[in-house]
Amino acid sequence: MLFHVRMDVAIPHGLDPAERDRLVTTEQAKALDLQRSGVWPHLWRIVGKYSNISVFDVSSSDELHDILSSLPLYPFMTIDVTPLAQHPSDLAAQP
Amino acid sequence: MLFHVRMDVAIPHGLDPAERDRLVTTEQAKALDLQRSGVWPHLWRIVGKYSNISVFDVSSSDELHDILSSLPLYPFMTIDVTPLAQHPSDLAAQP
Amino acid sequence: MLFHVRMDVAIPHGLDPAERDRLVTTEQAKALDLQRSGVWPHLWRIVGKYSNISVFDVSSSDELHDILSSLPLYPFMTIDVTPLAQHPSDLAAQP
Amino acid sequence: MLFHVRMDVAIPHGLDPAERDRLVTTEQAKALDLQRSGVWPHLWRIVGKYSNISVFDVSSSDELHDILSSLPLYPFMTIDVTPLAQHPSDLAAQP
Amino acid sequence: MLFHVRMDVAIPHGLDPAERDRLVTTEQAKALDLQRSGVWPHLWRIVGKYSNISVFDVSSSDELHDILSSLPLYPFMTIDVTPLAQHPSDLAAQP
Amino acid sequence: MLFHVRMDVAIPHGLDPAERDRLVTTEQAKALDLQRSGVWPHLWRIVGKYSNISVFDVSSSDELHDILSSLPLYPFMTIDVTPLAQHPSDLAAQP
Amino acid sequence: MLFHVRMDVAIPHGLDPAERDRLVTTEQAKALDLQRSGVWPHLWRIVGKYSNISVFDVSSSDELHDILSSLPLYPFMTIDVTPLAQHPSDLAAQP
Amino acid sequence: MLFHVRMDVAIPHGLDPAERDRLVTTEQAKALDLQRSGVWPHLWRIVGKYSNISVFDVSSSDELHDILSSLPLYPFMTIDVTPLAQHPSDLAAQP
Amino acid sequence: MLFHVRMDVAIPHGLDPAERDRLVTTEQAKALDLQRSGVWPHLWRIVGKYSNISVFDVSSSDELHDILSSLPLYPFMTIDVTPLAQHPSDLAAQP
Amino acid sequence: MLFHVRMDVAIPHGLDPAERDRLVTTEQAKALDLQRSGVWPHLWRIVGKYSNISVFDVSSSDELHDILSSLPLYPFMTIDVTPLAQHPSDLAAQP
Repeated sequence: MLFHVRMDVAIPHGLDPAERDRLVTTEQAKALDLQRSGVWPHLWRIVGKYSNISVFDVSSSDELHDILSSLPLYPFMTIDVTPLAQHPSDLAAQP
Repeated sequence: MLFHVRMDVAIPHGLDPAERDRLVTTEQAKALDLQRSGVWPHLWRIVGKYSNISVFDVSSSDELHDILSSLPLYPFMTIDVTPLAQHPSDLAAQP
Repeated sequence: MLFHVRMDVAIPHGLDPAERDRLVTTEQAKALDLQRSGVWPHLWRIVGKYSNISVFDVSSSDELHDILSSLPLYPFMTIDVTPLAQHPSDLAAQP
Repeated sequence: MLFHVRMDVAIPHGLDPAERDRLVTTEQAKALDLQRSGVWPHLWRIVGKYSNISVFDVSSSDELHDILSSLPLYPFMTIDVTPLAQHPSDLAAQP
Repeated sequence: MLFHVRMDVAIPHGLDPAERDRLVTTEQAKALDLQRSGVWPHLWRIVGKYSNISVFDVSSSDELHDILSSLPLYPFMTIDVTPLAQHPSDLAAQP
Repeated sequence: MLFHVRMDVAIPHGLDPAERDRLVTTEQAKALDLQRSGVWPHLWRIVGKYSNISVFDVSSSDELHDILSSLPLYPFMTIDVTPLAQHPSDLAAQP
Repeated sequence: MLFHVRMDVAIPHGLDPAERDRLVTTEQAKALDLQRSGVWPHLWRIVGKYSNISVFDVSSSDELHDILSSLPLYPFMTIDVTPLAQHPSDLAAQP
Repeated sequence: MLFHVRMDVAIPHGLDPAERDRLVTTEQAKALDLQRSGVWPHLWRIVGKYSNISVFDVSSSDELHDILSSLPLYPFMTIDVTPLAQHPSDLAAQP
Repeated sequence: MLFHVRMDVAIPHGLDPAERDRLVTTEQAKALDLQRSGVWPHLWRIVGKYSNISVFDVSSSDELHDILSSLPLYPFMTIDVTPLAQHPSDLAAQP
Repeated sequence: MLFHVRMDVAIPHGLDPAERDRLVTTEQAKALDLQRSGVWPHLWRIVGKYSNISVFDVSSSDELHDILSSLPLYPFMTIDVTPLAQHPSDLAAQP
């Protein structure tokens, strides 16, 4: 089941640089793991913003919330989730 | 080059049903052609709305506008385009 | 899996009254059926508006879109869907 | 009498972690008490956000404000309240 | 129990003038009746707009919705309802 | 002459508690005085918010600004003022 | 007493041209009369819009509403009114 | 003097096609004339929209309003004007 | 050439009071100078806000930006500029 | 390929002045370099704001993101990117 997710990151300017680096590094490792596992099939940067547009493939809303809230940068992100359905004109939906 | 595109469709209630059917049918045919050609790699329905979220893969902004403005439902759609870049945590971007 | 759904209805003033009555009546019948089946556990009127706030319990986003788009008033509604997860302070979530 | 309540929590990043833990723990205890008492029949997490959507069942607006303003996290929440009425298509409203 | 209510009226320009007059006249009669009965204690015009700000004094949300939805101009109004509580600095709340 | 006034209070979390108490206490005393003098005939709390909706009865816009800007919490409030006129359906306006 | 008023005009495209001309002509005559009488001291066009920004000098909110609602184009305008006070740095306010 | 101008066009679907063609053709001719004269140095299409972003070089705000309001599509456009100044980092502004 | 300017001031609560006083005093002196010179013909306070609505009379957009950006409170203000043109119903525009 | 870019700068008031000066100086040097290289053909100040409107000419979205995110003030800017296409009425597009 697919969900469209937009994440806008706003790390406070005053955060300790070492802590900031640690957060960004662990966030990236976590993102790579989740992509390898198949639950995070798409991850794009929005041009000009510290933001991404992603698509998650999960078995439930609860699983999605567990994943998102476990991201290291979660406390510094605004996240908007849009549920997706198969489009009737999707090539993969044709008989 | 990828662009995130959201299309919200609003066909007037008073439109002739035959014309409406013709528009929807040709729109679908066009969408399938564009998917087959590779320029429209993702097409999803937003749950509860006559809207889609899409990703287009084109060689220029001009090509994208030509494609979007040639869609049969173009006169009835509000379209928002967001340029995408490769995300540094994208699995495909790793060395 | 629960989804929070808000529906705002805007039937055009010029719609034929008999057609309007037919739509409202079939909408109600459909809503009652869906409540009996268990997929539409909560349905409330927003005070002062031709709108409702609902909770749906479905097995997938696709099922939810199929249900919503089959409602007789669907062409006249603006629908916003918010995915819900179990709250850690929900009484039912306590060990 | 039912009210739809959305709470968005924004605890300042600089808050002392012990104080933060104390607030979250007492908030949860209070939420469980209010659910047991019947005034807070529904409490859901919004996926991807430190927010909840709730339904309260109270005898007056004053009672609702007393409850909300006594929550430990009240100073850190943005709360939006929407009064609900029985929907004419609610199964429980049928003769 | 008090509710703050804002009503914005938008009667279609094309409505038959006689029907419009009938609606406005019956709306006024209804408004006067509700004021006399005590449920509509305050009714003000917003300067420069076909809108009013009102305060209703009702025993429940359901009663308020019944009143609002029975107003002759209800199909042509956008209504926003805000529940009110006694303010701790209200003179009438002092011991 | 009546003005509808909404005040949203946002005292910084870091403000010295004694200073905060002093502000809230003097604000209340001022609010009571202004109610007794007749210029602040209505003062209601918005349920779930540190906000009020008020009606002021003053002889000029300048008088209203002088009153509002002299409130102890003025530096911490967002204030929106809407001028009111007598409504033609106001019971007090009937011949 | 001064009020800042913005008027956005939206005459329906389908209005009879003769009726439109009559409205615009009588609106202009009324505007000139009100300027001559001193109650409408400033009237500017917003560049690129069928809108104006005006300042009215009236003795009460009721007088302002009477003036605005008697304008021939009133049924086709969205009007926003902002009450003004003397600014402490206004040259005319200096001792 | 430069002004940034965004124009969003919304021709009613019901407009007579011949009239529509006439409007679009005369609009284009006018746009070309204005570009040749130097007052309209930049004109770009926004991808996916019946909108343009333009820069005008005029000697006054009045001249700009005269130009914009004389465009054949003016009655069908929403226009937003932003005044521009020379940027201190503009290459042409360097000594 | 006239421009409508709205300035919303937000001096941080933590600013040193002496620095704040110095800023406000020099701002006022500058505002008086600019009014005397004729470039700032109108300056009004918005009731209930630390904001003003002004009209400037300058010979170019660059001159306006130079003036605004040289105001002592400029770093603490949000400024919105709207270009004005002569209104066809302006008394001063009549032949 | 052209992109319309708006940048709103918000450097925290508390930033060390020397660091602020260094950022602004290196930002300007970078902006001049990019203009000389041809990728940043237009750069204008918005009157009254610490903002610019720019046009970039790049070969891809990725190139644009690389440029924007390498600007010294990038961490303090809100950036909005709009893809542009050739307008059919652009003088340069005529046969």
